[in-house]
Amino acid sequence: MTGRREALRRFSFNQATAQHWPLPDVVAGCVAAGVPGIGLWREPVAGYGVERAAKLVRDAGLTVTTLCRGGFFTAEDWREQNRRAVDEAATLGAPVLVLVSGGLPAGSKDIDGARARVADAVAELAPHADAAGVTLAIEPLHPMFSADRCVIATLGQALDIAERFDPGVVGVVVDAYHVWWDDRVYAQIARAGKWIASFQVCDWITPLPEGVLLGRALPGDGCIELRRLREAVDRAGYTGPIEVEVFNADVWARPGEEVLSASIDGYLREVI
Amino acid sequence: MTGRREALRRFSFNQATAQHWPLPDVVAGCVAAGVPGIGLWREPVAGYGVERAAKLVRDAGLTVTTLCRGGFFTAEDWREQNRRAVDEAATLGAPVLVLVSGGLPAGSKDIDGARARVADAVAELAPHADAAGVTLAIEPLHPMFSADRCVIATLGQALDIAERFDPGVVGVVVDAYHVWWDDRVYAQIARAGKWIASFQVCDWITPLPEGVLLGRALPGDGCIELRRLREAVDRAGYTGPIEVEVFNADVWARPGEEVLSASIDGYLREVI
Repeated sequence: MTGRREALRRFSFNQATAQHWPLPDVVAGCVAAGVPGIGLWREPVAGYGVERAAKLVRDAGLTVTTLCRGGFFTAEDWREQNRRAVDEAATLGAPVLVLVSGGLPAGSKDIDGARARVADAVAELAPHADAAGVTLAIEPLHPMFSADRCVIATLGQALDIAERFDPGVVGVVVDAYHVWWDDRVYAQIARAGKWIASFQVCDWITPLPEGVLLGRALPGDGCIELRRLREAVDRAGYTGPIEVEVFNADVWARPGEEVLSASIDGYLREVI
Repeated sequence: MTGRREALRRFSFNQATAQHWPLPDVVAGCVAAGVPGIGLWREPVAGYGVERAAKLVRDAGLTVTTLCRGGFFTAEDWREQNRRAVDEAATLGAPVLVLVSGGLPAGSKDIDGARARVADAVAELAPHADAAGVTLAIEPLHPMFSADRCVIATLGQALDIAERFDPGVVGVVVDAYHVWWDDRVYAQIARAGKWIASFQVCDWITPLPEGVLLGRALPGDGCIELRRLREAVDRAGYTGPIEVEVFNADVWARPGEEVLSASIDGYLREVI
């Protein structure tokens, strides 16, 4: 068991990977499987109660690795939503709030303007996050989401913003699914260094489903060089958690324990 | 009519935009609409006969702007297929053969290796293309196609290969749909200069359909800054044809004349 515990030392299970598994069951499942970390999402946490979720996870001895998510800076209430998300992260003991920055405003074609607004919004939120002890982690999303979810499409762009701040205040998420295709990704990971706030893994498979959101596979089931990316992130100095985060309707239809077990298997076989 | 003819001077109708319109009807439709250029595809041309298609188009007074497509360098018969495609382009009077370079080989995760093989394959084909007077045009495809269609995902990558050759022998395709999201696209278009062998337009809409191949919209119906891209391509020194190329099941279901007319309208309103 010691060998397995050591092998899982950096493993974190993002709760979205077992979308329909109730929070207490995810927590119990992680404990039973010897998983030390968990990534949480605002919506299920709100449904359970933020304080109550914080206590549940703390009492179980789990480390909260990230809270998903802030961002969506095109929404009218983005200031209020993001300040609240920072506060929830602090309450949960999550050191990192993942930011999905939002796409183009409705009817707009001005992608440069949208990108500038992300930088402005992050600058505006940074003091509040700093005071709360939460790192704002800008997540570049795959360019197929540029129009409707996230105008930050590469690690390079995320770093162009994050580097204006101290690494503890604003960082970046390296999610293998979003960056694997980029011929500059290894150079950008090296550049990212201390700004890497989170490393997430899943895998790329085709054909992509309608809407392309739920097309991700468990680690090892697709074509991403996960170990190579993990080694690059390590070489850049990142020593933090490695989260498995999969959105896939077929995966979500399976029992939570089975999904967690498959996530661990893929992680041990393909990532570390 | 002179004003319209001048406005359509660079317009080319890619026959894939009206997928089910038989070749003689596309040609007659282009002539009737005052369209000077046409982009052809190998499969429908082969169905009609290459020599016969060449005569049909020539007799109609149309200019063939591109032949789609060569590439797919992971196929076993890629050498033979691409040499044949070059010869067909020459027969048709198409100055440009569009290359879709292919994705990862089945079961492979080695994207660097696949990219190196594209460069090698282009180098191997270049003398034959040069002798035939056909430019091999490397088309970067949107990164959502990196795994299964084209490991060349950015204009920068396409240029890294094309620049090893004379511009008349190997060039690049700037297709708005594939490059609009890239924060470096305007710098890369400026860099591309004489290597721009083709400029294609359509538009980006969401949600993407299953398989993401048929999600394109007519120019003006989506979020791409088409005029800005066209102006950038012009500034880089490109004076050639501007092809409308749309893959969309709903567009394909409409009568060919209507699709051509809508393509022209979008071009006049949003591109030039």
